[in-house]
Amino acid sequence: MENLKPKTENYQQVIQQLLLDYATVKPAYGDFEVETIFDTQRHHYQVLDLGWEQQRWVHHCPIHLAIRQGKVWIFRNTTEQDIAAELVILGIPKQDIVLGFYPPFMREMSDYAVS
Amino acid sequence: MENLKPKTENYQQVIQQLLLDYATVKPAYGDFEVETIFDTQRHHYQVLDLGWEQQRWVHHCPIHLAIRQGKVWIFRNTTEQDIAAELVILGIPKQDIVLGFYPPFMREMSDYAVS
Repeated sequence: MENLKPKTENYQQVIQQLLLDYATVKPAYGDFEVETIFDTQRHHYQVLDLGWEQQRWVHHCPIHLAIRQGKVWIFRNTTEQDIAAELVILGIPKQDIVLGFYPPFMREMSDYAVS
Repeated sequence: MENLKPKTENYQQVIQQLLLDYATVKPAYGDFEVETIFDTQRHHYQVLDLGWEQQRWVHHCPIHLAIRQGKVWIFRNTTEQDIAAELVILGIPKQDIVLGFYPPFMREMSDYAVS
């Protein structure tokens, strides 16, 4: 069985840096904190917008990535950026990226992994 | 200045156990995983529902708590449970709980902390 630990450690560094970069940019509207939430045990990595838009409380997760069995799952991306393409540029091969928010039959039609 | 470390360590244990208990219950509908996401460095603690309802991808955070300067902030609670009251039962005093999703003027009208 393949030892997934070095790969996972590499991917988690790449992901954390990517999300830290994202989190430096605040939404143009509203009064938000942009938080990074990294669970390095369960391998969940999020950007979260927290704050007020007009009088309304906003709790919004624009990006959520996870690592499972050596693959990067994109569970959420409401940004305008193509996160999968950025991960590829950062050295993660397409076969190690899963577009988790698509149903499996749609993943099959992509160049990325199905699971 | 008060050393907040022991308090924070105590509160994070209480919070993690509470959320782990919540995460044992799956939503009655849909095909979900219920994940716990604990960032023990930045002190963010979440429950997250991930999965499919009919053909639709669902990424929903029912509970998000954080610890800041020795206080527990409730940033999100879409459950039917009164999480603040449960935290009190578990030994966290009201003056150390902030209902973060209410604007400050409403927090002032509660028995809980304003910030």
